[in-house]
Amino acid sequence: MKALVFQGSGSMAWTEVPAPRLTEPTDVLVRVDTTTICGTDLHILKGDVPAVTPGRVLGHEAVGTITEIGSAVTSLAVGDRVLVPAITSCGKCGPCKIAMPSHCASVGGVGWIFGHLIDGTQAEYVRVPYAETSVHVLPEAVSNEQAIFLADILPTGFEIGVQNGRVKPGDTVVVVGAGPVGLAAIRTASLYGAATVIAVDLSETRLKRSIGFGADQTINSGRQEVRERVMEITNGLGADVAIEAVGIPATFELCTRLVRPGGHLANVGVHGEPVTLHLEDLWISNITVTTGLVNGTSVAMLIDLVGGGKIDATPFGTHTFGLDQMIDAYDVFAHADTYDALKVVISR
Amino acid sequence: MKALVFQGSGSMAWTEVPAPRLTEPTDVLVRVDTTTICGTDLHILKGDVPAVTPGRVLGHEAVGTITEIGSAVTSLAVGDRVLVPAITSCGKCGPCKIAMPSHCASVGGVGWIFGHLIDGTQAEYVRVPYAETSVHVLPEAVSNEQAIFLADILPTGFEIGVQNGRVKPGDTVVVVGAGPVGLAAIRTASLYGAATVIAVDLSETRLKRSIGFGADQTINSGRQEVRERVMEITNGLGADVAIEAVGIPATFELCTRLVRPGGHLANVGVHGEPVTLHLEDLWISNITVTTGLVNGTSVAMLIDLVGGGKIDATPFGTHTFGLDQMIDAYDVFAHADTYDALKVVISR
Amino acid sequence: MKALVFQGSGSMAWTEVPAPRLTEPTDVLVRVDTTTICGTDLHILKGDVPAVTPGRVLGHEAVGTITEIGSAVTSLAVGDRVLVPAITSCGKCGPCKIAMPSHCASVGGVGWIFGHLIDGTQAEYVRVPYAETSVHVLPEAVSNEQAIFLADILPTGFEIGVQNGRVKPGDTVVVVGAGPVGLAAIRTASLYGAATVIAVDLSETRLKRSIGFGADQTINSGRQEVRERVMEITNGLGADVAIEAVGIPATFELCTRLVRPGGHLANVGVHGEPVTLHLEDLWISNITVTTGLVNGTSVAMLIDLVGGGKIDATPFGTHTFGLDQMIDAYDVFAHADTYDALKVVISR
Amino acid sequence: MKALVFQGSGSMAWTEVPAPRLTEPTDVLVRVDTTTICGTDLHILKGDVPAVTPGRVLGHEAVGTITEIGSAVTSLAVGDRVLVPAITSCGKCGPCKIAMPSHCASVGGVGWIFGHLIDGTQAEYVRVPYAETSVHVLPEAVSNEQAIFLADILPTGFEIGVQNGRVKPGDTVVVVGAGPVGLAAIRTASLYGAATVIAVDLSETRLKRSIGFGADQTINSGRQEVRERVMEITNGLGADVAIEAVGIPATFELCTRLVRPGGHLANVGVHGEPVTLHLEDLWISNITVTTGLVNGTSVAMLIDLVGGGKIDATPFGTHTFGLDQMIDAYDVFAHADTYDALKVVISR
Repeated sequence: MKALVFQGSGSMAWTEVPAPRLTEPTDVLVRVDTTTICGTDLHILKGDVPAVTPGRVLGHEAVGTITEIGSAVTSLAVGDRVLVPAITSCGKCGPCKIAMPSHCASVGGVGWIFGHLIDGTQAEYVRVPYAETSVHVLPEAVSNEQAIFLADILPTGFEIGVQNGRVKPGDTVVVVGAGPVGLAAIRTASLYGAATVIAVDLSETRLKRSIGFGADQTINSGRQEVRERVMEITNGLGADVAIEAVGIPATFELCTRLVRPGGHLANVGVHGEPVTLHLEDLWISNITVTTGLVNGTSVAMLIDLVGGGKIDATPFGTHTFGLDQMIDAYDVFAHADTYDALKVVISR
Repeated sequence: MKALVFQGSGSMAWTEVPAPRLTEPTDVLVRVDTTTICGTDLHILKGDVPAVTPGRVLGHEAVGTITEIGSAVTSLAVGDRVLVPAITSCGKCGPCKIAMPSHCASVGGVGWIFGHLIDGTQAEYVRVPYAETSVHVLPEAVSNEQAIFLADILPTGFEIGVQNGRVKPGDTVVVVGAGPVGLAAIRTASLYGAATVIAVDLSETRLKRSIGFGADQTINSGRQEVRERVMEITNGLGADVAIEAVGIPATFELCTRLVRPGGHLANVGVHGEPVTLHLEDLWISNITVTTGLVNGTSVAMLIDLVGGGKIDATPFGTHTFGLDQMIDAYDVFAHADTYDALKVVISR
Repeated sequence: MKALVFQGSGSMAWTEVPAPRLTEPTDVLVRVDTTTICGTDLHILKGDVPAVTPGRVLGHEAVGTITEIGSAVTSLAVGDRVLVPAITSCGKCGPCKIAMPSHCASVGGVGWIFGHLIDGTQAEYVRVPYAETSVHVLPEAVSNEQAIFLADILPTGFEIGVQNGRVKPGDTVVVVGAGPVGLAAIRTASLYGAATVIAVDLSETRLKRSIGFGADQTINSGRQEVRERVMEITNGLGADVAIEAVGIPATFELCTRLVRPGGHLANVGVHGEPVTLHLEDLWISNITVTTGLVNGTSVAMLIDLVGGGKIDATPFGTHTFGLDQMIDAYDVFAHADTYDALKVVISR
Repeated sequence: MKALVFQGSGSMAWTEVPAPRLTEPTDVLVRVDTTTICGTDLHILKGDVPAVTPGRVLGHEAVGTITEIGSAVTSLAVGDRVLVPAITSCGKCGPCKIAMPSHCASVGGVGWIFGHLIDGTQAEYVRVPYAETSVHVLPEAVSNEQAIFLADILPTGFEIGVQNGRVKPGDTVVVVGAGPVGLAAIRTASLYGAATVIAVDLSETRLKRSIGFGADQTINSGRQEVRERVMEITNGLGADVAIEAVGIPATFELCTRLVRPGGHLANVGVHGEPVTLHLEDLWISNITVTTGLVNGTSVAMLIDLVGGGKIDATPFGTHTFGLDQMIDAYDVFAHADTYDALKVVISR
């Protein structure tokens, strides 16, 4: 079959590789019908993720069709249209039993293994371990083009942004970074009744787009003093919740200055270096800071909300490609600003 | 009356000052029967807290007797024996209405005002604002010598350590710093069923004492590699909860390395400088970091538990003084290691 | 002044009474600008509430203007436009300190005292005890005609229905009874991300109206087998949350049969007789049943959401009257079905 | 092998039956080393549980040794000493994914299947379905004689009594019924810091025993007016939590009168008939009533606490028998009052 293979720092190819086969009784094989690219894939390509070695098939998001099931699989069947989410969950280890498959012990302590520790989803077929506790059968009401965003960005924005941030009815929520995951947090903040969602970004295009995703206010951090504007909007109190969706020290530190006493700072961004935490000011401020990799525990619920029309997932996809245009898709996604791209939808 | 007056950096005196008088209908006057000294008082004395100006009467913990009540006070009476806690709560501002009087807006945004923004409790008498929503009438079963520790250290250890750390039945809790507040966290961790409480300190004396307060294990951080020991005790997983009760960068950073994925780090220490937060490692670890000043929302409950014999508060007091020995009491408390002191009890 | 006076079972009059005066330093006087009538008022009129004695001014909902303040009042001023909610909170008793003013000990153990234990709001003026911890200053963005529904029905539907029912994102919520409070629950269920809200009633008119308030599905309990329909909608599982908003045994028992294992039944209805709880079936079903009088702890938040346009309160008011048309207003409200009325808005 | 076989209402025999065999790849076979008898077994024997048909091997609690594992089992091995708990969890259905295996859909909607829908544990060997998500490998520190009480009574008292009752530090908890499960609730109430635990029963012997399990007060309901005594103890407020551990209408209704406004009533008893819920009084009292079958989600944690010596499980076992004395064991357990028995321990 064809797959996108990592060939060492800076290099990849859409090339022929052996098709995957079942190896455990709890595996299934899935024909990939739709996949997408994540910012993490770009980091891998640059060589930033040493655990990913040359020869690895990339990608950790897919919608597909089951073509074969392991001998222990009883609740899934060949032909099922399924979502293969970013996180693999064995369902039986300590972390999985406390609804934290992001640290599934059975797959090595981090639940993200596709395109990382095992071959991924940017391929014609993928082997899916612990399938019954990981994949979701999709209802007809959810199209592949919607479902693909339930593999990672929507649950990440919701669980690690909105839920970790303990958004509650009436809250003012500031989301720093209006990329795909920031927009996913903006879109799902209404599920806990946020009163005012403020999008912060450097790009006017992204800020305009954020309105469509549910932002009530926007702040261009290149042109406006963000803290001042947030204080104006909140009558000098600060935001109830600040969601960091960039991943650099400056935006994290900004978030610590935007949140009110008693508020929550939910870090969603993937950071590559340490940040300074001003505990000399913050020790007294009764704030809560959270970090995290998505667990996917909200995916079934989000599928229902997308299917019922309560969440519109379609606008996350701005560009579409065929599987064999994988390299073009990477090019567009890697230059999202140039192409005004959000997420790419890559389908068979 | 006599009171301990701050006279500028490094200087204080037990001296005659005008007795306080009622100024608001919601005030009461309290004759101080028992008070104590807090680490914060030592910081103030050094000049580290600019808001405290010369002439200020110090102290924010007292047990006393009401001698006069304001015209709006109906639920307190002259003669009531009351606990005057560290935090003043107006009961009607935004923060107080969400059970966060640590940031009471009516008293300026920080609920700690005694010996800080208004005259304090290291005096023969003290004016207590917003008395009905701040003080607690003491039952007979709780002595002054026990109650004095309910003004600050016990609720601080419990609320900001144990509750913020979300200790739950079965948890392994590591407390870094076995001073008075760390010991208060150790003593109250059993209220949420902690299975294993680990005390970490440099002092063998403190570690030995921590056993009496409920620690199951001790680690001398001067002699043992703390992370290694915690990993041994937790089968390589890390602690469910780490409570920082020192207030320096090294101990905070240590705590971030002791807590398991999905765990909680509750900062209790008062910090004077920034710390480094290693988000390049921690972004993926699903941890929660909390900070905070005590709210005192647990004080009524803790009074009951002390009165019912379920919490033994007496051992926090290692040295006793008369009010007019205030300067001696400061000397002992400031050299706690030399005198093997924990908290001093200063009584009329 | 003029006021609506209860004259014993079945009788009332809009008549001259002495104007109220301040009696406590924590009181304010309010000129009533807008009031309304509650189902409870009809019960009182029938003589069903023995605590209400002849001579009592009725009503427990008002929007008005402060005309005088007590000596201890500092955070309210003459001229403030305020919401006087159904529940009085002293802010300092045990129940108020745990955010349960519905049982405020200072006013006798039940926080509802207006038009019940003290003179009420269906009058030109009303004395408001514990004003600083009870009333809410209204922002300009919220009109009197909207605010009046924040005195009781919106917080009741939200707190006792939606919050007690622990509605969470993705839930199916069935609301039995589409009167004013049931509609308030329907309207606010989206604040916790309900996926599907099902309205159940005998009246087609009410069911049609419920769609405008946010119901996704309706079931006419006179024409359809309710349990069967709920099971169809939920794929045989049952509702996550059932909200009882009628107050008779049949609807309560129906709710117990609509809720799934692990689900919540939030009773909002005011009951006059016992119900049968089928514990022989329900002991094993892991359900939670809650009851309650509104606390009003959500009122400030709901004011913000109404002001920000996130909740539309206006449609609750179907008929408007002048204060001196009070008797006409009662007539319309008492025959709501005939007049197709929901709530009446009675303004100066 | 030998097993205790139900032979229709009123009849059973310890007799030869075919040994169980693996039927699914997720099964294991367990040699039963220790088992016990539950009150439910007595109900079955009387013919009260129609789902149990003649020929069924009874029993749903066991400690044993794995003798064979299915082809999909990787985290358990032959020779492992395991706890086989009352509840079977597939780990992959809707209820299991929300930590509610008490209603596991894969085994028919009720997680209790041993000695009910499939052959049980009062036998020399038992087939255990969904073993990896159901059984617990036991640490050396926990003996068989302790572990057997972790199969049902300790988690039931804790989850359905203490956790459902939302016991929190400082609470007054009244437990009505001091049988094995009531005592399990009493023993574990301290895990959430209960200040005062009150045991209520008709038997002086049981009440005396309850002191050893952690009760602070006892009330003999045959000799004292229970409500009056609870009100005395709680200064007229009522209990924070009432736990019903009997299962008859009178005790349930009693509990509704013992709980304070805002309190919790956790039903643990197995009821055979409806109860009357006095909503005409309770609608206003802001109480929460919960029901439920144990989930076993606390078992791993309780194993740790027993192993660490924080919970003493040994006293639950008052009489010991060999497997071939099964009939004698039933006789003693069925006449617990006569023999002053609590639980019987039946070992190979």
